[in-house]
Amino acid sequence: MPLRQRQEVQALPRPAELNDLRTICEDGGAVLILDQTRLPNETAFVRLTTLDEAAHAIRGMQVRGAPLIGATAAYGIALALAQGIPLERAIDTLAATRPTAINLRWALERMRRALQESAPVVRQAVAWQEARAIANEDEEANAAIGRHGLPLLQASRNRPVQAMTHCNAGWLATVAHGTAIAPIYAAHGAGIDVHVWVSETRPRNQGLLTAWELAQAGVAHTLIADNAAGLLMMQGRVDLVIVGADRIAANGDTANKVGTYLKALAARAHGVPFYVAAPVSTIDFACPDGAAIPIEERDAAEFGHGAKVSPGGTPIANPAFDVTPAQLISGIITEQGIFSANSLAAIER
Amino acid sequence: MPLRQRQEVQALPRPAELNDLRTICEDGGAVLILDQTRLPNETAFVRLTTLDEAAHAIRGMQVRGAPLIGATAAYGIALALAQGIPLERAIDTLAATRPTAINLRWALERMRRALQESAPVVRQAVAWQEARAIANEDEEANAAIGRHGLPLLQASRNRPVQAMTHCNAGWLATVAHGTAIAPIYAAHGAGIDVHVWVSETRPRNQGLLTAWELAQAGVAHTLIADNAAGLLMMQGRVDLVIVGADRIAANGDTANKVGTYLKALAARAHGVPFYVAAPVSTIDFACPDGAAIPIEERDAAEFGHGAKVSPGGTPIANPAFDVTPAQLISGIITEQGIFSANSLAAIER
Repeated sequence: MPLRQRQEVQALPRPAELNDLRTICEDGGAVLILDQTRLPNETAFVRLTTLDEAAHAIRGMQVRGAPLIGATAAYGIALALAQGIPLERAIDTLAATRPTAINLRWALERMRRALQESAPVVRQAVAWQEARAIANEDEEANAAIGRHGLPLLQASRNRPVQAMTHCNAGWLATVAHGTAIAPIYAAHGAGIDVHVWVSETRPRNQGLLTAWELAQAGVAHTLIADNAAGLLMMQGRVDLVIVGADRIAANGDTANKVGTYLKALAARAHGVPFYVAAPVSTIDFACPDGAAIPIEERDAAEFGHGAKVSPGGTPIANPAFDVTPAQLISGIITEQGIFSANSLAAIER
Repeated sequence: MPLRQRQEVQALPRPAELNDLRTICEDGGAVLILDQTRLPNETAFVRLTTLDEAAHAIRGMQVRGAPLIGATAAYGIALALAQGIPLERAIDTLAATRPTAINLRWALERMRRALQESAPVVRQAVAWQEARAIANEDEEANAAIGRHGLPLLQASRNRPVQAMTHCNAGWLATVAHGTAIAPIYAAHGAGIDVHVWVSETRPRNQGLLTAWELAQAGVAHTLIADNAAGLLMMQGRVDLVIVGADRIAANGDTANKVGTYLKALAARAHGVPFYVAAPVSTIDFACPDGAAIPIEERDAAEFGHGAKVSPGGTPIANPAFDVTPAQLISGIITEQGIFSANSLAAIER
């Protein structure tokens, strides 16, 4: 379903409709995005009309989630060309916004290829067309991830399937449907009784976004501190973990929101299956392993404790991602099906 | 050094002096406690004069940390007797405040034994005397923990020793010196170059208390999200982990602030030594293993996200502790020395 016009959207739609929305869409030569820094308190859309606005939206996390970052960057190129900004400068500006999510670079590379082959007279039209294709394909890929992941959530006991996730890899992190949450939405839609443990995800609290969208969709869920994941698994209260990914190396090592690795270690300790859900565009076949993935360091202000924790001064380190080794991953759910982490070479690129 | 009088203390002392203070002390038939719910923004002391005030201080975490909870409960008995409240009723009231920290029950049991043997005419005096002894012995035990743990922090490389801790097990969690932080203070005092990774410790953010007291003492430290612990260990930036304990079972399984277990799993995965520091009063010899330790569930308001995370309503689960299995623990640092987790039977009770 396409995003409604701005003035209509800004009145909060009914929950079921809101979850069907796209996080990004075109609006007459501009781009509308759902401003995720205002959620869950406020549902507001921001209109992007320039390259700098697109770059700011990515850097400032008005849009976030690897697939959505990719789509936004693609539209950012279209906006840049409309301003007369040279393609390579636009690519450099957008590529510098966030270092870890590979979908950003993947989308920019795809835009470059499409535009390099185009005659100058059609370049602007091609840019919009290609950005639109990237967005549409993300929606389709995530729907397929939901279908492929659904069988993992079949309730085998006389209680709800207990899924745990981390950060937000729901529809807010993508153009539509989500990655890690897509199988959960699919299961919920199929009438399967599912409950989701939603990890707060410090320091940015993206778990609140997950809670917000699960509540909109009527999916049972409980917010927990990131610290509680090990206890819940030890208590046998988690059937599977599903997370998204910001970059998957060729060997299956997976960078995702910091804290993912701790959940993977706990899952392994308690025999809980641990799945990564991501479109193929998240796999960096040129990256041999996790050690080669750059880890973004973000601003200390994200902690929200004010400038000074202590009178003497307390530095804050804020690495935004960590790497989960392939051997801790039960499977990678893609639009082409579920792959073991060490068999990614079989994937069609 | 005894706590200064109230009016003198309320003006913020110089850092070095503040760290030498006790968190609890007597004040002419009343008890003064440092109100930890106001830290790090404000250094304020609260005067306890009744059983209910003592129980409220423990339940509301104005005092926290297993050893300090024990000392506060002991003084609470002295306050109750001065009010004419029967001993058993006072014990029941205080025992109900927090379920996990065994030092609470240990201190109450010790008060009961001392008072049962006393003639009515001296009971009040005995109560104050025994509470004072518990507090003094905690100070001595923690100083000994510092001495025994110090050798673990000898710098073996051409860079600072990198210690990681969780929650607050510094002097704020005890009568004085701290448990997990006692060896760090001892090392710092001995001129060893030490840096501490301070985990935020959601949802109550007790890591800010640790940052505050380390800053006061001039110990280098960096605040991190709990989620970052695995990444830092994977990057080889942690030499050892030292945490406190709320209850240690007879087999060495250790209950501590929720999230401790995730750090222990990551430490094991990367060959990082993982130590628990606690006085012998934290060992529950009657508790066979971690599965028998009750896990306190605390109020959702501690998350600080307001009453409603999402329009549809999001429940919050807030277990305050988790259990680290004995086999993940490199050693338990007590006032009697360092014991392997499976040799606690050798400890003198």
